[in-house]
Amino acid sequence: MRSHYCGELSEDHLEQSVTLCGWVNRRRDHGGVIFIDLRDREGLIQLVFDPEYSPESFRHAEQIRSEYVLQVKGRVQHRPEGTENPDLKTGQVEVLGQELILLNASETPPFPVDEKLEVGEDIRLRYRYIDLRRPESLQRLRLRSAIIRQLRKFLDERGFLDIDTPILTQSTPEGARDFLVPSRTHPGQFFALPQSPQLFKQLLMVAGVDRYYQVVRCFRDEDLRADRQPEFTQLDIEASFLHEEALMALMEEMFKELFATVLETPLHTPFIRMPYAEALACFGLDKPDLRIPLRLVEVGDLMKTVDFKVFAQPAQNRDGRVAALRLPGGGKLSRKEIEDYTQFVAIYGAKGLAYIKVIERSRGREGLQSPILKFLPDEVIGAMLERIGAENGDIVFFGADKASIVNESLGALRVKLGHDHGLVEHGWSPLWIIDFPMFEWNEDDDRWHALHHPFTAPKEEDLSLLEQNPGACRSRAYDLVLNGTEVGGGSIRISQAQVQSQVFRLLGIGDEEAQDKFGFLLDALKYGCPPHGGIAFGLDRLVMLMTGSASIREVIPFPKTQTAACPLTGAPGQVAEAQLRELGIGVRRPPSDKT
Amino acid sequence: MRSHYCGELSEDHLEQSVTLCGWVNRRRDHGGVIFIDLRDREGLIQLVFDPEYSPESFRHAEQIRSEYVLQVKGRVQHRPEGTENPDLKTGQVEVLGQELILLNASETPPFPVDEKLEVGEDIRLRYRYIDLRRPESLQRLRLRSAIIRQLRKFLDERGFLDIDTPILTQSTPEGARDFLVPSRTHPGQFFALPQSPQLFKQLLMVAGVDRYYQVVRCFRDEDLRADRQPEFTQLDIEASFLHEEALMALMEEMFKELFATVLETPLHTPFIRMPYAEALACFGLDKPDLRIPLRLVEVGDLMKTVDFKVFAQPAQNRDGRVAALRLPGGGKLSRKEIEDYTQFVAIYGAKGLAYIKVIERSRGREGLQSPILKFLPDEVIGAMLERIGAENGDIVFFGADKASIVNESLGALRVKLGHDHGLVEHGWSPLWIIDFPMFEWNEDDDRWHALHHPFTAPKEEDLSLLEQNPGACRSRAYDLVLNGTEVGGGSIRISQAQVQSQVFRLLGIGDEEAQDKFGFLLDALKYGCPPHGGIAFGLDRLVMLMTGSASIREVIPFPKTQTAACPLTGAPGQVAEAQLRELGIGVRRPPSDKT
Repeated sequence: MRSHYCGELSEDHLEQSVTLCGWVNRRRDHGGVIFIDLRDREGLIQLVFDPEYSPESFRHAEQIRSEYVLQVKGRVQHRPEGTENPDLKTGQVEVLGQELILLNASETPPFPVDEKLEVGEDIRLRYRYIDLRRPESLQRLRLRSAIIRQLRKFLDERGFLDIDTPILTQSTPEGARDFLVPSRTHPGQFFALPQSPQLFKQLLMVAGVDRYYQVVRCFRDEDLRADRQPEFTQLDIEASFLHEEALMALMEEMFKELFATVLETPLHTPFIRMPYAEALACFGLDKPDLRIPLRLVEVGDLMKTVDFKVFAQPAQNRDGRVAALRLPGGGKLSRKEIEDYTQFVAIYGAKGLAYIKVIERSRGREGLQSPILKFLPDEVIGAMLERIGAENGDIVFFGADKASIVNESLGALRVKLGHDHGLVEHGWSPLWIIDFPMFEWNEDDDRWHALHHPFTAPKEEDLSLLEQNPGACRSRAYDLVLNGTEVGGGSIRISQAQVQSQVFRLLGIGDEEAQDKFGFLLDALKYGCPPHGGIAFGLDRLVMLMTGSASIREVIPFPKTQTAACPLTGAPGQVAEAQLRELGIGVRRPPSDKT
Repeated sequence: MRSHYCGELSEDHLEQSVTLCGWVNRRRDHGGVIFIDLRDREGLIQLVFDPEYSPESFRHAEQIRSEYVLQVKGRVQHRPEGTENPDLKTGQVEVLGQELILLNASETPPFPVDEKLEVGEDIRLRYRYIDLRRPESLQRLRLRSAIIRQLRKFLDERGFLDIDTPILTQSTPEGARDFLVPSRTHPGQFFALPQSPQLFKQLLMVAGVDRYYQVVRCFRDEDLRADRQPEFTQLDIEASFLHEEALMALMEEMFKELFATVLETPLHTPFIRMPYAEALACFGLDKPDLRIPLRLVEVGDLMKTVDFKVFAQPAQNRDGRVAALRLPGGGKLSRKEIEDYTQFVAIYGAKGLAYIKVIERSRGREGLQSPILKFLPDEVIGAMLERIGAENGDIVFFGADKASIVNESLGALRVKLGHDHGLVEHGWSPLWIIDFPMFEWNEDDDRWHALHHPFTAPKEEDLSLLEQNPGACRSRAYDLVLNGTEVGGGSIRISQAQVQSQVFRLLGIGDEEAQDKFGFLLDALKYGCPPHGGIAFGLDRLVMLMTGSASIREVIPFPKTQTAACPLTGAPGQVAEAQLRELGIGVRRPPSDKT
C-alpha cells in the first residue's frame, strides 16, 4: 500500500511518484493551499494539496483532521526556497498530493501527539497506543529492540544456545513473592510463575548444554517501588567449565560491543573490580556511582576516646562505624539546606547529621564552624581534617551509628550531594562488585540469609569457613553496577551436592524441606554436574539507563502502574464464580466486607 | 578451562596439546591401556591413558566411571592404523592423556546416555537433564534455537520490531480456558495469562509501530490432547498498510529462507492457495496433507433418487453429503482391515463405511464386490465409477451423512490410508487455506461462532452479507498448513469500530459486555486505526515437523505431561495456607473430601 516511509524521503527522491501511508500530524491552510504533515514510524513529510493541481484531492484534504489515517499518492518536489525546515529530516522536500484516500478517521485524541505537552502517566498508560505515537516514546521501544537484538547477536556468535524454560513452574522457598496459578487438572494445587529460571538453567548445564542464554520474563509479586514491575525482562546467561574471571571478561566484551553498536560510545575494559567491603567502606553501598567524586572516610579510630558519646560509642562498638563525607565548596550551605540533608539521612535511620564547615583551616579550631567542635580535642580535629583532606570552603558531614545505618545514610547522602551540586561526571561508569559475603545475619529471624541466592558457590579458599565462621565466608558472586544502578548479578554455582546441602542447612532449610523443594536439584548435582556459573541482567533497567529514561515504565511496551494494575486493559479484574469453582478455589471476603 | 570442544578435534589438530572438559561416555580397558570416550556438546573424542606414558593419569583413569565429569590435558594423535572409527566425526584421531582432573563424580544414572535404549517418557521427563545428554535430544533443542534465530533474522532485516507484551493481563471472553493469577494488591481480582497477544499487537498497530513481531509464550488451560501443552511458544507477527497477498508472500519468503538455511531444503513459492470450501470438498478438512495423493469425490448428485436411504437421504438433505474415496490397489484389503477402518471412522461419528471393490470394471456389476451393490442401479454405478476414475484392483469407500461427519471421517480416513499404505510422498507440502467463512453456526448454543477470532475482518465484497447472510460471509483469514498440520493462522483485522461492534453483536457479545471486555480495543479503533493484519505460528509444532519428532514434547526444553504436570519439579504443588490468605483466596474442598 506504500512505496516509501514518510520519514525516509529526501532530495534523492525528487520528481519520483510515491505512495505514502500515515497519520495526520497537523493540517494548515495557508495561501489557498492545504499543508498536511503526514507521520509514520520513520518520521514526518509535508504534503501539499493545491486546488489548481488536483481539485479532488484538495476537496478531500479539506475534510481531514489530526490523527486521520491517509494513503496519499503524489510527487516529491523541492520546497520553495526559504520554506525548507532544517529541523526535519525530510525538511528539504515536500510531496505534491495527487490522490488522497481516507483510510480511517479519528476522534480528537485524549491528548495531542504532536506537542510536548506534559500528560499525566495514568492517562498516558490508559491510551498507551496514543502515547506511543509520540516519536520519543516509540524511539525508546526501538532502542529496546535494538539492544536486545545486539545482545542476542553477541551470544549467538559465541555459541550460546537460546533455550526457553517454563513459565508455569514450581513455587520456591522465596515463594512468599511468587505469583500463583491454580491448576484445573490438579484442583487445590498451584503453579508458580518464576522469579528467575535459575534452577532450569543450572539443569541445562547438568545436561551438557554448555552455554545457554534466554531473554526471559520473570515475575515478582512485591510491593512496587519506584522502579519495579510485577513482570520484568531478564537476559539470563549460564555457562559451564569456566571461572568467574572468564565470565566477567566475556560480559565486558558484550557490553563493550553493545555500547559501541547501539550508542556509538566506547566503554573501557577491563571494568573496575571492587570488593564488597571496599564499596561499603568508601561509598556506603554495594552499587557505587563512581561518576560522583565523593568518598566516605573512616574516622572511627580517632574517635574511640573522645568525650563525645555520639561518636565514641559507635567507634568502640564492633558493629559501629564513624565516617566522614567531605563536600568540596559545601561551606556555603545554608542552615536550611543542612537541615534538609539531616531530614534526608533520617529516612535511613540516622539520628542526626553532624557537620564541620571549614572556613580557614590554617587557623585551627578558630577557622572551623560546627556545633560539635567543643566535644573534640585539637589533635583529633587536626588528624581528622588531615585524613579527610579538608580544604577551605568545604563542609564535612559525619555519620556515627551502627555501621549499616552509617553506610546507608551516608551512601545515599553522597549520591544526593553529587546530584544536587552538579558533581556527577558525564559518561558511563561500569564496575564489578566482587568478594561478597556468602551470608548476612538477619536479626529479625535470628538466622543467616544468603546475600545472593542459596545456589551461589563459596570461594574455594573459604570453604572451611562454612563450618567455622559463616559470616566471614566469601562467595564467588559478582554484580555489575552501571552509574550507580545494579544492572546484573551472578555467580559461580555450587556443583557439589554435599556443599549445597551444607548451605541449605546453614540457611535453616532442613534436609526434609530441601529434599521436598529442591530434591530435583540435589539429584541433578549427583549425576555429573559440571562446574558452572552465570549471570542475569535486568533488561528493563539497562534499557532505561541507555535511553536516559526516568523510569522503567518508559521502556516497557505495556507497563503496569505502581499498584500493579494495567490502566489500558483494566487488569486485574473480576472473574466468574463458575470459573473459580472449576479451578477449585474461592475468593475470601475481607472481614469488613461481610454483608 | 578448555582449549577445544571434544567433538571438534580432527587431523587439523595433530600434535597439538589440548585441554578438554566433558562427560565420560564410556570406559574400556584394553591391552593394558584405558580408553575413555569423552563427550561434550559437540561430540565424542577417544582418550587413551597409557601407564607407561603417564602413570599418574592412568591411575586416576582407573577410578573413572560413566558420566563422571573430567578435565583432561593431552596431545592429539592419529589413531593406530586399523582402529579409526569412520562413524565418528573425530574418528581419525585420539588424545593421549597427560593429566586427568576429576571435576565431579556421578552416581549410576537412571538410564544410560550412550545407548539407544527406549526409556519411558515419564522417567525421561523426570530426569530431563540426563535425557538431554543424548545427542539426538540436544540436537532437537539446537535446531529449535537455530530455527528461532533464523526467523528473527529474517524479520529484523525487514524492519519488524521485536516488542514484548504483558504476560499478566486481562481475562478474555474465551476466558474459560484462561489460566488465572490472583492479585495480592487487588484481593479478589485476577490477572489472566494470555492465550495470544492478539489485542496488544493490534494496539501496537494503532500506535504506529507498523511492523511487529515477538517470539512469545502463550497459555491455554485445556484438556491436553496428544500434541498440546498448557504453555506453548508462538511467533507472532503483525503489520500495517498491507493486504493479505503481500503478507502471505512475505511469509513464504520467510519459510523459504528458513528451510534453505536450517534444513538446506528448497521450498517452492508461491505456495498453493486453496479456498476453504475446496479443502473440505476434496480433503474433508481444512489442513489437507497434499503429499497423500487421495481425494474425496462428490457423488451426492448421483444418489438423490436411489432406493438406498443411507445414501439418498444425505444426498437430498441440504447439510448432507455423499462422497467417495478411492484407494488405488485397495481391492486386496481383507475383511478384517475393512472392519478396522469402519471402527476408525466411527470415532468421527460415521455410522458405517460402505465400500465397493473393483475386481474387473469392464464386467460391470459382475466385476464389483460390495454389500451395497444391490441398492444401486447400473447407470448410477457406471457414472459413479467413471467420475471416481476407479480402476481394477481399487477399493472405493463411501461416506454418507451430515456433511460435517462425512468430511471429518473421510478426511481422517484419507490420512490414515495414506500412511498405512505408504502413499505419503517425501518432501514438504506447504499450502495456504483462504476464503474461510467468518462464522459457523453452533447448534449446541444456537448461535454464530467466529471461525477464527472476533477481530478477523470480513472480505470487502461480503460486507453486506454480515447483515443479510452471516453464514455466507467470508473472512480475510489465511491458515498455513504444512504436511497436513496447521502451523500458522492469521488474518487482516477489523479496523473500523462499527464493523467490530457489528461482529461482536453477531457473536452474541452484547454492547455492554463488548464495552466491558473490549472497550479499550473499540476506543483504539476510533482514534485512527490503520488497516492491518498479521499471523501467528505455533513454533513448537513447526520445530516438531522440521526435526521429524513424534511429539511437541520432544522439542520443548522442559515439557509438561498430558496431565499438565512437570515430573521434574513436581509442579503444580501445594502452597501454604498463609500465602493463599494473603492473596484473598482459599481452596475449596471437593465434596468427596469432607472429613
